[in-house]
Amino acid sequence: MQAARIVQVSVQDVRFPTSREQHGSDAMHTDPDYSVAYVVIDTDSDLRGFGLTFTVGKGTEIVVCAVQALSALVVGKTLQEIVSDFRGFYRLLTSDGQMRWVGPEKGVIQLATAAVLNAVWDMWARAEGKPVWKLLVDMDPKQLISCIDFRYITDALTEKEALEILLEAQEGKKKREEQMLREGYPAYTTSCAWLGYSDQQLQELCSEALAEGWTKFKVKVGADLQDDIRRCRLIRQMIGPNNMLMIDANQRWDVGEAVEWVTRLSEFRPLWIEEPTSPDDILGHAAISKALAPLHIGVATGEQCQNRVMFKQFLQASALQFVQIDSCRVGSINENLAILLMACKFKVPVCPHAGGVGLCELVQHLILFDYICVSASLDNRMCEYVNHLHEHFKSPTVIRNAHYMPPQDPGYSTEMLEDSVEKHQFPQGEVWKKIPQ
Amino acid sequence: MQAARIVQVSVQDVRFPTSREQHGSDAMHTDPDYSVAYVVIDTDSDLRGFGLTFTVGKGTEIVVCAVQALSALVVGKTLQEIVSDFRGFYRLLTSDGQMRWVGPEKGVIQLATAAVLNAVWDMWARAEGKPVWKLLVDMDPKQLISCIDFRYITDALTEKEALEILLEAQEGKKKREEQMLREGYPAYTTSCAWLGYSDQQLQELCSEALAEGWTKFKVKVGADLQDDIRRCRLIRQMIGPNNMLMIDANQRWDVGEAVEWVTRLSEFRPLWIEEPTSPDDILGHAAISKALAPLHIGVATGEQCQNRVMFKQFLQASALQFVQIDSCRVGSINENLAILLMACKFKVPVCPHAGGVGLCELVQHLILFDYICVSASLDNRMCEYVNHLHEHFKSPTVIRNAHYMPPQDPGYSTEMLEDSVEKHQFPQGEVWKKIPQ
Repeated sequence: MQAARIVQVSVQDVRFPTSREQHGSDAMHTDPDYSVAYVVIDTDSDLRGFGLTFTVGKGTEIVVCAVQALSALVVGKTLQEIVSDFRGFYRLLTSDGQMRWVGPEKGVIQLATAAVLNAVWDMWARAEGKPVWKLLVDMDPKQLISCIDFRYITDALTEKEALEILLEAQEGKKKREEQMLREGYPAYTTSCAWLGYSDQQLQELCSEALAEGWTKFKVKVGADLQDDIRRCRLIRQMIGPNNMLMIDANQRWDVGEAVEWVTRLSEFRPLWIEEPTSPDDILGHAAISKALAPLHIGVATGEQCQNRVMFKQFLQASALQFVQIDSCRVGSINENLAILLMACKFKVPVCPHAGGVGLCELVQHLILFDYICVSASLDNRMCEYVNHLHEHFKSPTVIRNAHYMPPQDPGYSTEMLEDSVEKHQFPQGEVWKKIPQ
Repeated sequence: MQAARIVQVSVQDVRFPTSREQHGSDAMHTDPDYSVAYVVIDTDSDLRGFGLTFTVGKGTEIVVCAVQALSALVVGKTLQEIVSDFRGFYRLLTSDGQMRWVGPEKGVIQLATAAVLNAVWDMWARAEGKPVWKLLVDMDPKQLISCIDFRYITDALTEKEALEILLEAQEGKKKREEQMLREGYPAYTTSCAWLGYSDQQLQELCSEALAEGWTKFKVKVGADLQDDIRRCRLIRQMIGPNNMLMIDANQRWDVGEAVEWVTRLSEFRPLWIEEPTSPDDILGHAAISKALAPLHIGVATGEQCQNRVMFKQFLQASALQFVQIDSCRVGSINENLAILLMACKFKVPVCPHAGGVGLCELVQHLILFDYICVSASLDNRMCEYVNHLHEHFKSPTVIRNAHYMPPQDPGYSTEMLEDSVEKHQFPQGEVWKKIPQ
């Protein structure tokens, strides 16, 4: 491996004016401008790393500020130093004796940690000349384990158990990798039914998606029950009885309200209700799960689940039936490895959150790894896909027949086009200069 | 009330170099520089508001950035507009459709919300010519309720139940207020036994505290078991069998480790173990509570509990036996009202976290209100006190015979001396210029 020493960590506030066409709108985020805090790591060699975390507009500048604060802990280190004690490096970023006070491991500071570590993983994979999923797949189980901080989760998953899961999944690994390269990983689409879309727009997009081979669809709900009933009926009629429907309330309800509302939508047979209430409410999700089980509707959550300690409890309390990992909310691959392994131990399927800017590009690596090296199963599993903003990436996702095809370029698919970054910088980029604030 | 319109929200990064003498050191925060993001609200009249949130050094600049982001939602409003729909204003700050993504209601953005709202409460109390505790005590129960956002907690506490608690506590209110003005609210001290202090320093400070009339003492533990045994033995010998001892691990352990370690310290009869593990681990705290109950040791936590949704679950799961509210971690008085009322419903005593910079000054108002208008009890209740940095405040706490004496000056006791703020600004203040970085 190159002895590359990190000489600079730079970060930019890059925003796309998606709110103007209601892309991404839901019951709680009515006007998102999809954005990233975009991190570039420079070394004293030609090796670079690109990372990001996803945001929805205002507040991105706070994450940028947090990345700058973390940078002091990163500059001066070599890639070799970092990856030879990745657990220690993770702990350094998340448990700084002063900085942890403004977290710990949650919110702004954890989003910033994700952006920085995503760039480190991108750099590592580039150094190895492999896409991140392949770097992970080829890695010795013991080395994978050495990337994970087990602090606060040993009551649910010990290092030894984690290693056993990985060793057990060595069987059939080669075959599953070949299968993924051939068929890709199954996906579902959220592009048809954002809350701000008209019924006509919904119908058109749904027709197009069906024609393209999509079989699994997600609808945003939670603002108005009668609207939800009408929209769910419309989409269920269009996709027919055998395709899959999921609904997503984006944290709109209290516990009792969630149960009542979803019961009213049960006739449309959703596979899951996503984010019915606060992402912090483990016991609330457990109560909702219990109430909806007789209706055969599961509970899904995770895109705003702040860290492995929360995922641990969601699993311990049977508070979710679908684990939605996110590539940018928690501490990058290091923390997602812990979550994937806990989900496997608790036998709960992982269905990643994606969309936004770059989330599809990143998370596809994680779910490919999960199938090949951890869960070894596709039952009730699929990865979210949203058809927005891929054109701004150097190695955009490739979807074929509603499946994610494994990325081939070295890295974590995180590098954006320089021109896109420049034009969308907030507030000085030319795209924003044209928009009256 | 004055029609004061807010024309400016300014914020400063103010740090005190406490790490140089190991004040405040514990098992996870080994070198804290006690700091605040200090907020000043200016209006078009002579009315001003002062607020702050507490931090421990690095990272304060991120909170400053978050306050600046929130300011846009505050400037232009009148005090009257805010307090006549305080619930709506709270929701505006915590649920902005874009900004909530970097929380929601946790970490940096919630610390910033606390600082801004603390300044609003200070301004309100000044407008009424009362200290905050008295503003609250004199307020109609319905108006108190109208300050609370009940979103996500109605499964544990409805608006109706909250109102009933307040109405019931009207009885005896006048008597309790007189009692507080006469005797003050009972306090315990953490000043004697920071982790970085030598045994000799501990002994000297403990002797002084006993001479001053202190009867309740907290010791930092968690770094080394043999050290903890020696230090706990020392302090128990000094304070005798009848005074009270508490221990605090500041999140150092995993669940199993916490139970083992505290069991080894049980011979020193601590009333509680504080922050045994991750502040996010509700189920972990529940397991620890259950294991320690036969030893008559309770679990206390809250200073890093991010919001009312987490407190709700800690109470629902019997995961704590002492609720440690904090004036600067959650959404100011609005969110703390919800937490005090839930604690009352679940019959768990509230023992506030204080210390740092300004935490004693602020939280004394809340616990006075709790006794006079909510819990009406002093059983197993006391407020933390730390003897540091009070000299930087215009209306510092007054301790008499180990009791907090009710503040008399109008406001929330949040205003700092201009000279202190100027000298301790980071990094440009003269105190910091003298310290080699």
